[in-house]
Amino acid sequence: MDTQRLPGITTPTALINSKQAKSNLQKLFEKAAVKNIRFRPHFKTHQSGQIGEWFRDAGVTTITVSSVRMAAYFAACGWEDILIAFPVNLREIEEIKRLSAKVNLSLLVESADVVESLADFLTDPVNIWIKIDSGMQRAGIAWEKLGEIENLCKKIITKKNLKLSGILTHAGQTYHAGSKEEIVNLYRVSNQRMIELRARLKTLINLDLQVSVGDTPGCWLSDDLGEVDEIRPGNFLLFDAMMMDLGVCEPEEIAMIVACPVVAKHPDRNEIVIYGGAVNLSKDFLLRDGKPIYGYIADLSMEGWQFSGSENYVLSLSQEHGIVKASDRVFAKVKIGDLMGIIPVHSCLAVDALGSMLDFEGIRYETMRAR
Amino acid sequence: MDTQRLPGITTPTALINSKQAKSNLQKLFEKAAVKNIRFRPHFKTHQSGQIGEWFRDAGVTTITVSSVRMAAYFAACGWEDILIAFPVNLREIEEIKRLSAKVNLSLLVESADVVESLADFLTDPVNIWIKIDSGMQRAGIAWEKLGEIENLCKKIITKKNLKLSGILTHAGQTYHAGSKEEIVNLYRVSNQRMIELRARLKTLINLDLQVSVGDTPGCWLSDDLGEVDEIRPGNFLLFDAMMMDLGVCEPEEIAMIVACPVVAKHPDRNEIVIYGGAVNLSKDFLLRDGKPIYGYIADLSMEGWQFSGSENYVLSLSQEHGIVKASDRVFAKVKIGDLMGIIPVHSCLAVDALGSMLDFEGIRYETMRAR
Repeated sequence: MDTQRLPGITTPTALINSKQAKSNLQKLFEKAAVKNIRFRPHFKTHQSGQIGEWFRDAGVTTITVSSVRMAAYFAACGWEDILIAFPVNLREIEEIKRLSAKVNLSLLVESADVVESLADFLTDPVNIWIKIDSGMQRAGIAWEKLGEIENLCKKIITKKNLKLSGILTHAGQTYHAGSKEEIVNLYRVSNQRMIELRARLKTLINLDLQVSVGDTPGCWLSDDLGEVDEIRPGNFLLFDAMMMDLGVCEPEEIAMIVACPVVAKHPDRNEIVIYGGAVNLSKDFLLRDGKPIYGYIADLSMEGWQFSGSENYVLSLSQEHGIVKASDRVFAKVKIGDLMGIIPVHSCLAVDALGSMLDFEGIRYETMRAR
Repeated sequence: MDTQRLPGITTPTALINSKQAKSNLQKLFEKAAVKNIRFRPHFKTHQSGQIGEWFRDAGVTTITVSSVRMAAYFAACGWEDILIAFPVNLREIEEIKRLSAKVNLSLLVESADVVESLADFLTDPVNIWIKIDSGMQRAGIAWEKLGEIENLCKKIITKKNLKLSGILTHAGQTYHAGSKEEIVNLYRVSNQRMIELRARLKTLINLDLQVSVGDTPGCWLSDDLGEVDEIRPGNFLLFDAMMMDLGVCEPEEIAMIVACPVVAKHPDRNEIVIYGGAVNLSKDFLLRDGKPIYGYIADLSMEGWQFSGSENYVLSLSQEHGIVKASDRVFAKVKIGDLMGIIPVHSCLAVDALGSMLDFEGIRYETMRAR
């Protein structure tokens, strides 16, 4: 890799293909716009005020974040309509209160106790979404528990400063699907459950609630986004090895890789030792024949990168070491001191670990967790 | 958990039991001292200048780090004898040169090309260790390749500024052992290979080389550290779920946990949702019945914590979400808004992710990657 146009890369560094990322953004933005569905992209993927401006330029005004700290960061970047897509953490109630005075804040609840605490403590109005588990079994009230959801709605609407916006889900079960068809189907089923729930709540308590959904696999692959009011995908901006393995994106749609220095080669087992370990790439993994792998490889050039084929992959990760299993072609080409392109398993976690991204024009995009 | 003595914990926070950590340190320090073996502890575990002072107070003067950046950080903390236990990254040669002018620097090599580059570029003398693979198959020249090692030695000794110190290995194969006995045996076999290699090199080229070894499992469990010159363990300071599962440490020897806010409870499946995900704990995992788990649970109190039993564990991790599978006892006890103690799978990675540690006296220990 020519380092003249990407000078000074000495340690593991995230590279972003800005053009591809903007194209991914435009594609999903338009898909939502054409159906008049609110686009509230998840900013946990890039965590960067600068990259947030791409979204603003495209016309986005509503965003999703995954922590109170991230909400405060993007509020400071001038975002005024922010949803924290994480169950309310009561230990951060002071910070939530400060934020609610500053921006149009949306919060997730799934229990009566939390509703009471919010009502008691907050003074400025906030939007409340009830977190529904539409099949993922991570967080939220199971979609079948109509009585519980109805009671929570009734409680929320008695609270002066809590404005009930609707019901929200993350159909993360699509991350475990076996095919594109299954993803589209899981997305459809999850949406059906949410829409049916909205209809039942309308009958029971005569409220016009909104439905918010939004996993990248379902939103990206489904031609029909469904009768929802809002989508909140995030990963689609950068994609990664996981999305490629799932069949969600093509290799050329991946917009971020990690450039890692090559520090040793072992010809007897076609293994390359890179400076790029768990603290740089995160230890997220994919299963291949039941065994974990930690990323794929990309051929780097001055202009960008290209997927090297699935016969090249990250075999193991220690704290700073990565071991790449390489084909004869890749092994022969790579020299000690070169940079190797690693397609991380999970781009959101790698960006978080690395703290900034560099594009091919030499622009550095800092994130809120700048290292 | 009483938050009066640990005030202001609102987000996932590393807690350190300073007394236990110092006791772990003293134990291994003395084990090495009694055999006159140089103790060169690995500082990648804590990455903290403040905690480094505990080692200095104990009498440690030589340290190990895993990156050039970490070497620069600890050099700035006043450490003068630093080994970078990672294959030389030629892209950082300028920084290595600056460091070599400042401290007594030791570097790892495993190829002739890197030796040539170092000889060409460096002006101040550095110590060179040849990285040997004594069975782990991650990095280094395989211990059986006597000719290759001999040739590398011969090349190094012709270089004016490269001082050949010896041969070095990390017997990380102990991390995959099935029992304490197997760990002790793997450590012994690895040491035998290194000592035999030293003897053969003495015969071949009449050099008095040192042997440096040092994985925590082997060093901690072996009564006999062997005829080595130096040990470099790191994890023993804090230990973690991995070391506990391996049988290396007792639960009460673990000196670091992560306090995570409880944000939701799901009684139908005894699951507790915590604020504490892959970005806080790292996504390192243990296998239980072939399935990954991401940590154990500790009962937190004002005075400290206690292992909750292996029936309580972290079932899954998303970016910020953690899902804890709890026994009836633990589930009943924990309330939304409480802090839950998580014993991370890998303390080194959790410390790196969290950026600081808090002890029970309220002292905060910052790390080089402070968040």
